[in-house]
Amino acid sequence: MGRVVVEVMPKPEILDPQGKAVNGALPRLGFTGISQVRQGKRFEITVDGEVTDEVLADIRRAAETLLSNPVIEDVVKVEAEPAAVSA
Amino acid sequence: MGRVVVEVMPKPEILDPQGKAVNGALPRLGFTGISQVRQGKRFEITVDGEVTDEVLADIRRAAETLLSNPVIEDVVKVEAEPAAVSA
Repeated sequence: MGRVVVEVMPKPEILDPQGKAVNGALPRLGFTGISQVRQGKRFEITVDGEVTDEVLADIRRAAETLLSNPVIEDVVKVEAEPAAVSA
Repeated sequence: MGRVVVEVMPKPEILDPQGKAVNGALPRLGFTGISQVRQGKRFEITVDGEVTDEVLADIRRAAETLLSNPVIEDVVKVEAEPAAVSA
């Protein structure tokens, strides 16, 4: 069983209200020196077999159609990850 | 200006309805061989100065208090990233 990590971020020109809210809250909680926060999504996808190039290409296609909205988001990473240790 | 990436995932024992929804949608869209999807969050935090160890420690503290809910989420990554090329 392999694992693939997909990361999606709002495009730079798109307003990001979640990130803005976090950015506004940080100084109130005593964290200073931060100029911008952008919030996106991270998916951990467990696949049945090995993570082959074909599987990665499939997941990239899924990332660009189902996991992200290409109008407002960029897929910034599609990468195989060593599987977590499991019993 | 430096950039720090923070990644937060739901704890393994916590139900993840977003991930489950994605997992259910994938086969309907023709993507097979995927056994699990977990959805978490990715933050890109731009800091005013250099990313020092102190800044990283500060952001780790923010990640564990503001950016994640420690009851149901784990902070899986707090890492400096090369700044994006900007004009």
